[in-house]
Amino acid sequence: MSTERKTFVIGGFRAAGAASGVKPSGGMDLALICADEPVPAVGVFTGNDFKAAPVVLTRERLAAGTARAVVVNSGNANAATGEEGHADARAVTAAVAKELGIPEAEVLAASTGIIGHRLPVGRITAKIPELVARLRADGFMEAEEAIMTTDRFPKTSFREVTLGGKTVRIGGLAKGAGMIEPSMATMLSFVMTDAAVEREAMGRVFRHAVDRTFNAVTVDGCMSTNDTALLMASGRAGNRPVRSGTAAYGALRDGLCACLGDLARAMVRDGEGATKVIEIRVEEAATTREAKAVAKAVANANLVKAAFFGGDPNWGRIISAAGSLGLGLPEKAVRLYLEDVLLFAGGRGVGAPEPTLREIMARPEIAVTLRLGMGRRSWRVWASDLTFDYVRINAQYST
Amino acid sequence: MSTERKTFVIGGFRAAGAASGVKPSGGMDLALICADEPVPAVGVFTGNDFKAAPVVLTRERLAAGTARAVVVNSGNANAATGEEGHADARAVTAAVAKELGIPEAEVLAASTGIIGHRLPVGRITAKIPELVARLRADGFMEAEEAIMTTDRFPKTSFREVTLGGKTVRIGGLAKGAGMIEPSMATMLSFVMTDAAVEREAMGRVFRHAVDRTFNAVTVDGCMSTNDTALLMASGRAGNRPVRSGTAAYGALRDGLCACLGDLARAMVRDGEGATKVIEIRVEEAATTREAKAVAKAVANANLVKAAFFGGDPNWGRIISAAGSLGLGLPEKAVRLYLEDVLLFAGGRGVGAPEPTLREIMARPEIAVTLRLGMGRRSWRVWASDLTFDYVRINAQYST
Repeated sequence: MSTERKTFVIGGFRAAGAASGVKPSGGMDLALICADEPVPAVGVFTGNDFKAAPVVLTRERLAAGTARAVVVNSGNANAATGEEGHADARAVTAAVAKELGIPEAEVLAASTGIIGHRLPVGRITAKIPELVARLRADGFMEAEEAIMTTDRFPKTSFREVTLGGKTVRIGGLAKGAGMIEPSMATMLSFVMTDAAVEREAMGRVFRHAVDRTFNAVTVDGCMSTNDTALLMASGRAGNRPVRSGTAAYGALRDGLCACLGDLARAMVRDGEGATKVIEIRVEEAATTREAKAVAKAVANANLVKAAFFGGDPNWGRIISAAGSLGLGLPEKAVRLYLEDVLLFAGGRGVGAPEPTLREIMARPEIAVTLRLGMGRRSWRVWASDLTFDYVRINAQYST
Repeated sequence: MSTERKTFVIGGFRAAGAASGVKPSGGMDLALICADEPVPAVGVFTGNDFKAAPVVLTRERLAAGTARAVVVNSGNANAATGEEGHADARAVTAAVAKELGIPEAEVLAASTGIIGHRLPVGRITAKIPELVARLRADGFMEAEEAIMTTDRFPKTSFREVTLGGKTVRIGGLAKGAGMIEPSMATMLSFVMTDAAVEREAMGRVFRHAVDRTFNAVTVDGCMSTNDTALLMASGRAGNRPVRSGTAAYGALRDGLCACLGDLARAMVRDGEGATKVIEIRVEEAATTREAKAVAKAVANANLVKAAFFGGDPNWGRIISAAGSLGLGLPEKAVRLYLEDVLLFAGGRGVGAPEPTLREIMARPEIAVTLRLGMGRRSWRVWASDLTFDYVRINAQYST
């Protein structure tokens, strides 16, 4: 699981955090991650039609294939801010580039916070000299603090992987608690590695890991305008550059999945108001697409999520959510398990013992398994429960 | 709007309600609607793969095109109950048929309540002689009471329409408060008319009205295993049978849409824990399908629903929900209105006055309009807000 509060060092990178006054609270709200030289970088972004200005800017700049720095603010999303918002994002990256003495095109940006308000650029740029001066190899925890919004705890993960006899390191930061959905929703994640990776393999391995981790968690089914996950690779480990289809690729993929999995599950544990993490496994689907769809339908069903909050083993709601897509699930073949306990088979409840179910439902992490009896594909998502605190937090956010 | 508590009479039909003990509370839980003779009947049902036994039975029996009676119980869904559940549903209809002295195939059934528990058939059948004895022309309010579950108020509607110089009557009952979604979710509705309608026109006009009413409301995005809407037409008004494509068809369609619209909006007003009805209009879409998809995405976004509960004019969440489908909405052309107040245009917030927005957000019924700038299609849905009470009700349902 996530190694909270533990700092880490990845050769070739430095980081820092600061309080610039974007957040009215005066808390940390500005982070900078900087590579010692331009390094290969890839990103995965929100699919929302209303992409925030920093998302548009960062996608454009990543076309070059390399980057040097990422500047991140919390407290303001710089989304739905028109042309001025794009100019604001560029102004922040220009200030960072000037202070670092590097081309502006090498600076990426990300933002998270309220939608529809202009970014206070003056406050941010005034803080950038201090931010750059604070950059240090063990500054990732400080950067993590500065990207948090409604997060209750920081989310970092560090993994070591051996590639062709060389040890490489993967370190990740993430923020995200609300607006989290299987298609990348308000979450930001920045992952650094000292591995050397070929460009094609880097894009492929990151997409693979993101699909199975960040895109497999849901808090509330809402997709943000700002979701951004970036991977930067310094190559300082001195390994032979990783290519697709090799053993080293497999090892890097597994390490990256482990690191991003830590961060993704931490986001669900920290879901707004969440008291439980529900792991939903769909097995024996005909296609991966159907397995994903069923898992997501269960994970996003408010009736299911509220029942888990209440510790109520109301398994009919899980069956009903799975069937609501009308995919033609074979009613008699489907089996439903709560942890190892069979609840439903042959088209009916099997009379599992109520005290056992209540004991399982009281746990902080609970696995639900649906075996569809249609094929051999599977998918897994992690969801939070729906609680009074979720409603309280989101009924009061901008007030 | 819905004419609550007002009873009505539709020539050719009688109804009754009773308490049979299915509900542990001892409340009314059994309803019977009966036509004086077999009448044309059509139905629309849940698309859930796990259809409840009464849904399967009623769909089969409706293939004959006519029906005589509908028996409905609340308190138990008779869903996920296997072969025994199907036998239970048949046993109840057999008891009704015997008491009425009619063929069993002319009796339809519907159930609502908890999933996965056997129906207490003995208690129900023991009550049927009394239920049949109670049948009367003004018994619809009593039947309505017996089909309610978590509903806070009864939902009935009565309309008169003139078809070719003849006045015909349309009367509808509905139940539904939770598990409500645009694709027919735990709602039951029974609509009686004394109009004479040709079979093809009857199916068509009912599907049209259901799509624009019951399928356009959402409480929690969850689809039930038991959704059933039935239309029965006695022909007692003596009008020339309504055919598709005629003026009378248009008048019947409008009357039916008005009647079902009353019931649908009443379901949202009575949504579990709901304090507000949000009308979401999507206009200027390229296709009706896209208009529906955007309206539904906004209507089901927990962040939007929680903001409405809190009276928070956080319009960024509406934009974000609309864009989350990735349909390629043209950011600069999209306009968002809260009632008549423009909030977003040209890709940015327009600085609508906060006090005006807060005043509107405090109203019990609020219209949101999204103009997409893509074409000429539109769609409208009604949604409830997401509240503490929704969570409370659904965290405790089966306990």
